[in-house]
Order: sequence, then structure tokens, then C-alpha cells
Amino acid sequence: MSSPGAKPLVGKLAVYGVGLIGGSFALGLKAVGAVNQVVGVGRSRANLDAAITAGVIDIIAEDDRSACIDADLVLLAMPVGQMGAVMARIAGHLGSQTVVTDAGSTKRDVVALARTHLPEAVSRFVPAHPIAGAEKSGATAARADLFRGRHLLLTPQAETEERAVALVRTAWEICGMRVSTMDCETHDQVLASVSHLPHVLSYALVHELASRINAQQMFDLAAGGFRDFTRIAGSSPEMWRDICLSNRDVILKELDRYRAELGRIEALLRAADGDGLERLFATARDARSRWLTVR
Amino acid sequence: MSSPGAKPLVGKLAVYGVGLIGGSFALGLKAVGAVNQVVGVGRSRANLDAAITAGVIDIIAEDDRSACIDADLVLLAMPVGQMGAVMARIAGHLGSQTVVTDAGSTKRDVVALARTHLPEAVSRFVPAHPIAGAEKSGATAARADLFRGRHLLLTPQAETEERAVALVRTAWEICGMRVSTMDCETHDQVLASVSHLPHVLSYALVHELASRINAQQMFDLAAGGFRDFTRIAGSSPEMWRDICLSNRDVILKELDRYRAELGRIEALLRAADGDGLERLFATARDARSRWLTVR
Repeated sequence: MSSPGAKPLVGKLAVYGVGLIGGSFALGLKAVGAVNQVVGVGRSRANLDAAITAGVIDIIAEDDRSACIDADLVLLAMPVGQMGAVMARIAGHLGSQTVVTDAGSTKRDVVALARTHLPEAVSRFVPAHPIAGAEKSGATAARADLFRGRHLLLTPQAETEERAVALVRTAWEICGMRVSTMDCETHDQVLASVSHLPHVLSYALVHELASRINAQQMFDLAAGGFRDFTRIAGSSPEMWRDICLSNRDVILKELDRYRAELGRIEALLRAADGDGLERLFATARDARSRWLTVR
Repeated sequence: MSSPGAKPLVGKLAVYGVGLIGGSFALGLKAVGAVNQVVGVGRSRANLDAAITAGVIDIIAEDDRSACIDADLVLLAMPVGQMGAVMARIAGHLGSQTVVTDAGSTKRDVVALARTHLPEAVSRFVPAHPIAGAEKSGATAARADLFRGRHLLLTPQAETEERAVALVRTAWEICGMRVSTMDCETHDQVLASVSHLPHVLSYALVHELASRINAQQMFDLAAGGFRDFTRIAGSSPEMWRDICLSNRDVILKELDRYRAELGRIEALLRAADGDGLERLFATARDARSRWLTVR
């Protein structure tokens, strides 16, 4: 992506929240020389030290001003519940050309937060969501290829500068992502269906079973299907609390639809309707297998 | 497990249903010379031919009599919905010492079927459930190591002969399984919780989403978490129809409990109770992670 002496895409990158996502973004740009310097900001000094040791960041910021004033790009990569406070902290320290982006899992609320807390920089704020992750977290889990082949969703607003969108798009493309643009509402709706609801359902199953007196026997006998179904219940409770709160209205609607679907299956079971059950299962299996083929 | 000239554990094995489970059982025994001859019986001639080619079975049975009369062991490895009919077919053809076992995912109904359809051989019928599987099916998916380290549950009845239980236990141990014994009721309860319910929940999610007008967009943007959560919705609709019907009462109770759990989560969401959500998610995550550690 760069040749010796060429100007890198990003001179200075400030990463707020040097975890799996923020750290992997830094590593993805570093891997091809697309960034000169990465400065890290975060709550945990131990994590930032580990990020230095792992080569994820170059320096730890002394304060918000030194992190932001001459940064070309600031990435906010913390749970959405903390994002407003961080925006408020950095608002007065951004350079006049600094582009700000985020990696939050919800977008309507992040856009609203930027309008509130970054009023002077809102045209340079590019809402983005890299759809990638794992149960692992922290800087030491970061890797340059985390995003390769995954989707990056941009939800720019009417006022967002073209230059800012182009910078963020190019940076994520360098990390190997397939970039699409959509509006915030569509984003939050689609993600509620294919990500937020499944996480809630998976947490719900494990929580319900964990309360049983024979929970250990059940877990002992659980097989690969259960392990896969519940993998996402190993995700960060703090992050998923924030997602649930910030996309609450849509998730509640999804939950309603899902409970209605369970009601239909219950009716088939009560009626011992084997044909109906088989049809429903086959429709699901076929849809999933078409989905896997298209991908 | 055998030395040259030693008598193998099983002289002749008849496998009814030469799919992933039945085929892998045959391969597991063959791999260590624990069976002399494997005869296959099934609905699909093409699958049986493929089983011969793959070395899963040695011959295709001409009829039930020739398959069963001199068999040391008959394995019934078809969906539970077909098991009664197959038992009725073979009942008159079993040798006086032939042991019969099954690999059905439910056990109360299989025991009841054996009492009805194998009255003279019921003391030589050993109900068993190897907890292993994959979305793949058919003889060509079979492999000798499918069962290695997995659980085999035996639910022998008061009248089941010790000799028959020992034979079936040893055969599955040769395939690498960890064998436990429990009663049918416990089996069906535990499996409903950790296997049957998750399958229903996974099918339900995919079915519900597949009906949306923007289903393709949603599937396109779904990531690894969704793929894992829905892996079991790729399972055989026929097999899961049968399991749902045969363990219907217990699955309905599990579904009730799960819907109540979703109701509690919905209440937390409506109240925007972040602490409550985080606590619930953390309890689930911790239980799952303890479970993974113990395994």
C-alpha cells in the first residue's frame, strides 16, 4: 500500500480503547505502513503497557490534548456506553482537520452523541461499525488480519465531509474490509436481527440452565451444538449491556417477533404436527444453506 | 484391540441406517479389527453403494432375515420416527443371542417401542445414545474417530441382560466414547435442555428472519456469531421433527421456561435496567466459562 518515502494515509492515529477492535485496526494499518504513529488512550494502564510491548501502539498518550491536537484520525473503540463521555473529553482538543470515527455496534445513538458532544467537529465525525469480533478482548488479542473479508458499515450523515468519509473508508479497506454505506436506522435494525437478538437469546439459554440444580450434569453432557449456540454468551457483559440499552427499542421489537415465532412452534408441538415442524425446520435449513452459499 | 487370530468383539454387525452415526460406528470397530463383517441395511441404494465403496460396510443385506439371523449385534441408527417400524420388521428374524441397540436421540420412546415391537428380544435390547453428530449426513460423512472423547449414554432397563449391556458398552468404548448410565427420564430431560431446545431456538431464529423482505441483506451482514448460533439449524429436519415429537412433553416444558426467561430479559430492557442486564449476561458468561474449564 505504501512505497518507501511515500506519505502514509494517516500520519498520527489516536486509538481510544486499545482492545481487540482498536488494536487490530492499528495493526492492520501498521502492517502496510499506512500510519506513522499510533498513540493509545485507555482506562487500563496494564493493557496499554501490553499494547506497547505487542507493538500495537507506539506511545501512551499523556493527556487528551496531546493525543488529539495533531492527530489525523481519532478512533473511538470503546463500548458505546462510554462514548459520550469520551467525546465530551476530546471535543476541545481536536485539531481543525482531525477526523473522528468510531467502531460502535449501534449507530443511531452514536450519531446523536456526536451531535451533542462534538458539535464543532460533527462534520468530521464518520460513524462506522466494523462487523468483526471474538469473545477475546484486550490489546493482546489484536491482530492485523482480524478484519480481512469482513463487513464495515458506514453511516455518514448529510453534513459529513466527503474527505472524512474517504479517509475512514480507505483506512478500513486497507485492513481488508468490505465497505458498505447505509443509514443509521437500517444499520440498527439489521444488526438487531442478526447480532443483538442472537446474543440475547444465547445469554438467556445459558442463564436459564445455570440456575438449575443439575446444571453441572447438563453442561457435562452438552455437545458441540450447544457449545456453538452459546459461544456468543462468552461475550463481554459490559459491551452487550451497552448495546442492549442503546438499541433497546429495536431489540424489544425483535424479541417480540421471536417470542411470537416460539409461540407458533409451541402450537405445532402441542398439536404434534410433524409435517408443520418438518416444513419449518426445512425452510430454516434451506435459507441458511443458501446464505452460506452466497457468502 | 485385537491380535492376529484373536476373536473380534463382534463377529457380524448389522447396521440399519448407514449414515453418519451408523457408518462411523462400523468404521470405529473396523479400525481396530473389533468386527469381522458389517452388513448394511437402508432406504437408499445409492447411499449403501457409497458405503461399500468407502469401506464402511462389507455387504448390503439381501433381506432382514439374512441381515439379522446370525448377527451378534444389530445397530438401529435411523431417526426415531422410523424405529418402531424397523423393530417390527426384524423382530421375527433375530438370532436367539443377537443383541440389539440403537443410537436414537430420545430414550423413553425407544424403550417403549422395543417393549411393543421386540417383545421376545427386549432383554437383549440396549437403549443407547451416542452424543455426537454434525450437520453432515450419509455414509460418506462417516469417520472412525467421530466418537472419540464424546459421551455415550446407556439407559438399560431392569430386564436388560448384563451380557448385552457389556457388549454395547465395550463396542462404543472401542470407538473412543466415555460411557455413562442413567435412566430414560433423566436422559430425555437433560437432552431436551442442552440439545433439543437449542435446536428449536436456532431453527426458530433462522425461520423468522428468512420470512423478512430484507432477509438477504440481513444474512449478508451476519457474522461469525450468527453463523455459530445457527449452525444447528443446518441439521436434518426429518430427524429433528422426530425428536420433537418423541420428546414433546419435556421440550414443551423447556420452551415454557425459556420463554419465561425471555420475559424477564424483556422486563429488564423495558426498564432500561443496565445493571440487571449486565448481571444476567455475566452470570451466563461465567457459567459457560466454568463449563468449558471443567470439560
